[in-house]
Amino acid sequence: MDSVVRDLAADLSEQARELDGRDRLAGKRDEFDLDPEVAYLDGNSLGAPPLSVAPRLAEVVREQWAGRLIRSWSDGWWDAPVRVGERIAPLLGAAPGQTVVCDSTSVNLFKALVAATRINPGREEILLDAGTFPTDGYIADSVARLTGTRVRRVPMPEMAGAACPRTAVALVNHVDYRTGALADLPAVTAGLHEAGALVVWDLCHGAGAVPPDLDQSDVDIAVGCTYKFLNGGPGSPSFVYVARRLQEVFDQPLAGWGGHRDPFAMAESYEAGPGMDRARSGTPDILSLLALDAALDVWEGVDLAEVRAKGLALGDFFLHCLDELLPGTGVISPRDHARGNQISIAWPDAEATMRTLTERGVIGDFRPPDVLRFGLAPLYTRYADVLRAVLALATVRAETA
Amino acid sequence: MDSVVRDLAADLSEQARELDGRDRLAGKRDEFDLDPEVAYLDGNSLGAPPLSVAPRLAEVVREQWAGRLIRSWSDGWWDAPVRVGERIAPLLGAAPGQTVVCDSTSVNLFKALVAATRINPGREEILLDAGTFPTDGYIADSVARLTGTRVRRVPMPEMAGAACPRTAVALVNHVDYRTGALADLPAVTAGLHEAGALVVWDLCHGAGAVPPDLDQSDVDIAVGCTYKFLNGGPGSPSFVYVARRLQEVFDQPLAGWGGHRDPFAMAESYEAGPGMDRARSGTPDILSLLALDAALDVWEGVDLAEVRAKGLALGDFFLHCLDELLPGTGVISPRDHARGNQISIAWPDAEATMRTLTERGVIGDFRPPDVLRFGLAPLYTRYADVLRAVLALATVRAETA
Repeated sequence: MDSVVRDLAADLSEQARELDGRDRLAGKRDEFDLDPEVAYLDGNSLGAPPLSVAPRLAEVVREQWAGRLIRSWSDGWWDAPVRVGERIAPLLGAAPGQTVVCDSTSVNLFKALVAATRINPGREEILLDAGTFPTDGYIADSVARLTGTRVRRVPMPEMAGAACPRTAVALVNHVDYRTGALADLPAVTAGLHEAGALVVWDLCHGAGAVPPDLDQSDVDIAVGCTYKFLNGGPGSPSFVYVARRLQEVFDQPLAGWGGHRDPFAMAESYEAGPGMDRARSGTPDILSLLALDAALDVWEGVDLAEVRAKGLALGDFFLHCLDELLPGTGVISPRDHARGNQISIAWPDAEATMRTLTERGVIGDFRPPDVLRFGLAPLYTRYADVLRAVLALATVRAETA
Repeated sequence: MDSVVRDLAADLSEQARELDGRDRLAGKRDEFDLDPEVAYLDGNSLGAPPLSVAPRLAEVVREQWAGRLIRSWSDGWWDAPVRVGERIAPLLGAAPGQTVVCDSTSVNLFKALVAATRINPGREEILLDAGTFPTDGYIADSVARLTGTRVRRVPMPEMAGAACPRTAVALVNHVDYRTGALADLPAVTAGLHEAGALVVWDLCHGAGAVPPDLDQSDVDIAVGCTYKFLNGGPGSPSFVYVARRLQEVFDQPLAGWGGHRDPFAMAESYEAGPGMDRARSGTPDILSLLALDAALDVWEGVDLAEVRAKGLALGDFFLHCLDELLPGTGVISPRDHARGNQISIAWPDAEATMRTLTERGVIGDFRPPDVLRFGLAPLYTRYADVLRAVLALATVRAETA
């Protein structure tokens, strides 16, 4: 490291120390099981484990499963999808009675899209965010094939004005998984509604980072995963939000007994349950649901505005460090605040670089063809982690120059 | 208890002691976390927890999730659905490469039925086991609505001859959830095939109790849950079997990124993965999958023929105790060996009776309108438990006479 870089690094290190010192969320990191030696910047892919999860799982297995056996189904297990959903609702700006947790994101997107085409019959088009996370596109194509609709891909900046009288529904991402670009959720929702289209928001890369104010923005349906900024654990079940005004007409195809009005009556015909129960499908997966339940404890007493502010400040500091240490780096994330909690960089030989960073204790991830992603989870990411990532990148650059 | 009953009970107790004494599976019970004071006869609804589950979950959270973070996805998590599926395959009579674990039973039934209608296009009928567990019927109705087919309900004794050239597929239960009646899987499969229909076997109430010999019987597709006789935990993920000869044409609608040929390439279009990968949908739910993985350890070294024999012997002893202590009880399970591992009884005021039994440490369950069900899990049910259940029933009968 030459002396100019050394001076810059010392200066940035002082800034990081100061920022961490006055971070009011800093204490939250103590609630996570995280190696202090690791700069974990991949919470946008897999959130870190809250310390509450392991003991809670042990309790669920030993006290509830072994101790109470089948009786636990009526002691709180059967209702867990709704109860855990209600704990997520405030993070989404959702009033009670509109959020449930079950199944995977892919499965819930399927339910949402088929239900939307049924609410809007006769409209043969599904609009799709052109930069979507791939699974959304695969599911949209599958729904189109089954329902006789077709998918039209539209870049997000054009989405608000893209719907027409043929559009049944648009499936759009709140935060772009590659770039971190944040969609204008209220404007896109309003624009789609103007053409009579419904909107399904995929909140996977935003939930727990960017509060989406679903009720206030009059969103129809939203789906998201709980294993990124919500720290529910690898592949933890997904949430579904259906606006109260649409619940009675929410008619989804994975009509398993879990969504039945009276599941234990074992009736021959399906009758959809009230409210969000009808978004459920099979038997709820209790171990994963209750791990997520435990993980949500970290949100107690957290001010969401503070989370959002820190997320942006971490990103701003990341960009500042890049500008100082690696000027000219190909940042593909928005430099303004129209972004979620990640900084993405186009980088030559990105895959090998991320391997090297990981070996050196800086963990982000790689997305094809050449993108390095660094997630910024306000509950546990330190400004010092951000600086360390940029210093590690500068070292790789120097080594390969 | 009058003296005649007392003598009978003493005699049966001696028989139970003798049967337990020479039970070669008796030692298996020590691998479960079960209160010795409880007669747990509901393993057909929720299997008891193997002792290996709690420590394994702690290890997964602390070593894999906290310790390795995102790296665990490539260290065994992503492939867990296939790896755990291969551990279940031998219990189903399935050669490798045909079984995967993911999603709920309801969701997997949906995949299976839609895929079957696509393999058999132009055939507009789905046959349904008239006594089916309800969720199968709900899903079949939903699939019919989406695919333009219709559902015809057929009693299982008539199923083998019920298909016609219009039949695309039949969805049938190996073991009837209410009565415990065991279907003739080879004959029903052969009969359906003769008419060119496919068969989807629901193995929920049989897997881990009655080996179904899927390969040998030329079964097309099978789905089952892992939380009954496989002890995977409440709502643990379901398995899907697709015969190798059908895998290339198995075209299922929940085409999430988990089933893609190259998921991390993030391609715009779906391309189904090879073999059983294509039956997968979203991100695998790791905590539940690895709890199930741990639970499957109890099958190491177990002779399945012995499991089946003990299951039948437990049922025979149940019937014998009933005949001795409660002659004339309305047994609705088959008295011959065409049954799974449960004894069901029509009983007045069944719901209240099961509550009373449960309070007294005899746990079975109730199904409407008037059925008491007692599950017999050969890996941990004792003959003494069976006798205790019948004695508890006799006491209730005496109290309410």
